[in-house]
Amino acid sequence: MIQKIHPAPRVLVADLREHVGETVSVCGWVNTLRLQRTMQFVLVRDHTGLTQVTHRRGGSGDELEQQFEELTAESAVRVTGRVVDNPVVNLDGLEIVPESVEVLNRAEAPLPIDEHTGLEHRLDWRFLDVRKRPAAQLLFAVQTTAEQAMREFAYREGCTEMHTPKLMGTASESGAEVFKLGYFDRSAYLAQSPQFYKQMAIAAGIDRVFEVGPVFRAEPSFTSRHATEFTGVDLELAWIDGVEDVMSFEERLLAHALARVAEVHGAAILRHFGVEVVVPALPFPRITMAEAQCVLRAEGWDPEQAKTDLDPEGERALAAHIKEQTGHEFVFVTHYPAGIRPFYHMRSTEQPDLTLSFDLLWKGLEITTGAQREHRYDVLVKQAGEKGMGVESLQALQDYLNCFRYGCPPHGGLGMGLGRVLMVMLGLDSIREATFLFRGPNRLTP
Amino acid sequence: MIQKIHPAPRVLVADLREHVGETVSVCGWVNTLRLQRTMQFVLVRDHTGLTQVTHRRGGSGDELEQQFEELTAESAVRVTGRVVDNPVVNLDGLEIVPESVEVLNRAEAPLPIDEHTGLEHRLDWRFLDVRKRPAAQLLFAVQTTAEQAMREFAYREGCTEMHTPKLMGTASESGAEVFKLGYFDRSAYLAQSPQFYKQMAIAAGIDRVFEVGPVFRAEPSFTSRHATEFTGVDLELAWIDGVEDVMSFEERLLAHALARVAEVHGAAILRHFGVEVVVPALPFPRITMAEAQCVLRAEGWDPEQAKTDLDPEGERALAAHIKEQTGHEFVFVTHYPAGIRPFYHMRSTEQPDLTLSFDLLWKGLEITTGAQREHRYDVLVKQAGEKGMGVESLQALQDYLNCFRYGCPPHGGLGMGLGRVLMVMLGLDSIREATFLFRGPNRLTP
Repeated sequence: MIQKIHPAPRVLVADLREHVGETVSVCGWVNTLRLQRTMQFVLVRDHTGLTQVTHRRGGSGDELEQQFEELTAESAVRVTGRVVDNPVVNLDGLEIVPESVEVLNRAEAPLPIDEHTGLEHRLDWRFLDVRKRPAAQLLFAVQTTAEQAMREFAYREGCTEMHTPKLMGTASESGAEVFKLGYFDRSAYLAQSPQFYKQMAIAAGIDRVFEVGPVFRAEPSFTSRHATEFTGVDLELAWIDGVEDVMSFEERLLAHALARVAEVHGAAILRHFGVEVVVPALPFPRITMAEAQCVLRAEGWDPEQAKTDLDPEGERALAAHIKEQTGHEFVFVTHYPAGIRPFYHMRSTEQPDLTLSFDLLWKGLEITTGAQREHRYDVLVKQAGEKGMGVESLQALQDYLNCFRYGCPPHGGLGMGLGRVLMVMLGLDSIREATFLFRGPNRLTP
Repeated sequence: MIQKIHPAPRVLVADLREHVGETVSVCGWVNTLRLQRTMQFVLVRDHTGLTQVTHRRGGSGDELEQQFEELTAESAVRVTGRVVDNPVVNLDGLEIVPESVEVLNRAEAPLPIDEHTGLEHRLDWRFLDVRKRPAAQLLFAVQTTAEQAMREFAYREGCTEMHTPKLMGTASESGAEVFKLGYFDRSAYLAQSPQFYKQMAIAAGIDRVFEVGPVFRAEPSFTSRHATEFTGVDLELAWIDGVEDVMSFEERLLAHALARVAEVHGAAILRHFGVEVVVPALPFPRITMAEAQCVLRAEGWDPEQAKTDLDPEGERALAAHIKEQTGHEFVFVTHYPAGIRPFYHMRSTEQPDLTLSFDLLWKGLEITTGAQREHRYDVLVKQAGEKGMGVESLQALQDYLNCFRYGCPPHGGLGMGLGRVLMVMLGLDSIREATFLFRGPNRLTP
């Protein structure tokens, strides 16, 4: 067994108070160096906090003094020393009087980024950007909590977690936004959503499907809310009575997740992001697309009355309207026109030009698209034909369409962008900040 | 609100006993039709079980009789009727006396597969294959439980769940097994593991990284245990004292997951797969590669003494040996020669031709590769050079290598194939059966 023996066990900075008087090791990064004439102060940071290492210079022959003198910011160190109660120290009234310091990985100086570095250059050095900013560290803790709370809710409601393929033999939904790759002697495509496969799982008798995984969009979009690869949270529910069942599921899932986030991280989010996490009341407001457009046009939106969909401006204005009317941050927009929805969205029996679909807006940003799916083979094929899909397209979709020939139950579901949820929750300007390693048309690194 | 009103709430088959005397709806598939002269029996299956619908023919004008007469196997139906206690009925002593039946999606007849269909053709119709076989349904429930138990353990041990990109700007580790795709005006590559990115997360100050996601291998392998896309469970731990910390983490994680699976599904797994889920004792046995080869050669393996790695035959023989010696199903093989491990595995100080790495075998199948990583920039670059990477290769890896220039802590981790874990756990012959929609060199559908 290869194992180095260290003089003291590692203690997290947040737990130091429990070890006053003991000799411990703290593992972390050199956050700040204050090398004064008689004293050396080194602030060491781990993922739980900052602590002060205090060393009184011993003059020539003081090895520790020399080591501290040569330290650089962001070096990875293990400091072993005694935890001392000292009310004068800002950081929790504690300091460490060091006995030894081990430089496990020395950081070059100067660092390539600092607090004035712009977003794109920060992304080039994302590992340093995330490491140095407690707010960025918090973001991934919040993501973990939110995602796990969604899972808890989904499992409790009878979901099975599926991992569907990202490699497809034919381009899904629409060929335009799909990445194509060489696959041995032929081509494959990257799934732009698990849509077809989660429906296949429904046809396979999986009662409720939950999936978290990457989705790929070959869209040349450069906005603050688009990425070419992002983490999708997908749900699909069998035997629904209508799309309302899907919306009800989603609002309860989000309320559960936000309650958990507020409980675990509410104070830290307020401190680091200046945002209050509000646990939303149920049900969320609902408005049809027709009503929404009517409300918005009354306020001057789309004066030419030419738009069939909401643009970002319309989404923000609608959110403001709903917030004013109901105090709610969320709104389901329902009954999208069939013309701007994919062929597999079920249509209303009463108004066949409308789909039984919805988007969910949070503070004016679309975070979800959902729908009841058309599960009747003949209707589905007819709707695909109306969207201009010819015999060839339908043949390419045959594996998908076959699911509807042998007893596919009614079902519906939704896809949610995890990065967008975080972006709105934490009040971030860009999805780039809500993703560990952002991917866009111009960015494939680091 | 669009919502159809049904005469009775949906009740799951497993819950019918609680509703004796009540009128309920059961939603499911026609499993079996027994249309006799005076009686019609329809066995309806949902994801929780089978129930019998019993209808006494009423003669002409009996609409229900007519509907049942026209049913087909695997049609999706909603049967509404009274739950009746009838000890004569095999299925839990219950039957449903129907008041109405709604055919929500009629299955075409005949079905394209039956119980005699071979594996490949079953995979073509995977949705029917999974739906009709309770064992296949169970597999995904087990997967959900196992995965969630791993998450619980990982979270409790301080892991953060990360979603790292699958799109890379340069080919990772080795170019040969990487899929290449068109990415706007250039090329991108699919990550063959989250290796580099989870190390980047460690460099970013994430203390312990957990990720579940797809990994892609452009290997033309046609074995029962290889796939071109599979679900990887990845872990990376910072500030380790040695590779032993990683192995200890993994054995505890697996013991926790298997205990949970045994508790929730043990009886069902024994019934459907004929396999007992054994909760492994800790620690797992460990053997160095040198020792393993010595043991195996004594038993006649590799008579030419030419092999540096274990082949599948050697893995099985080693597992048998360990099982005999210790009774244990698992074994860590450690200290792989540097020649057969990637450049980023840390080498032993004492024996620089050996790496501080391991594979974990379960019942003779490799389910994990892990290692302490080399976190010292100069050593890492040197090791890359020794693997034949030239200036160009190193330049392509610069974003990765940069992580080690600014204070990267010691760390190590592992990657586990979720499908392989299920394959061994349930005693399956092929990874194809352990995956919802298998992807191999010859299979991109359905």
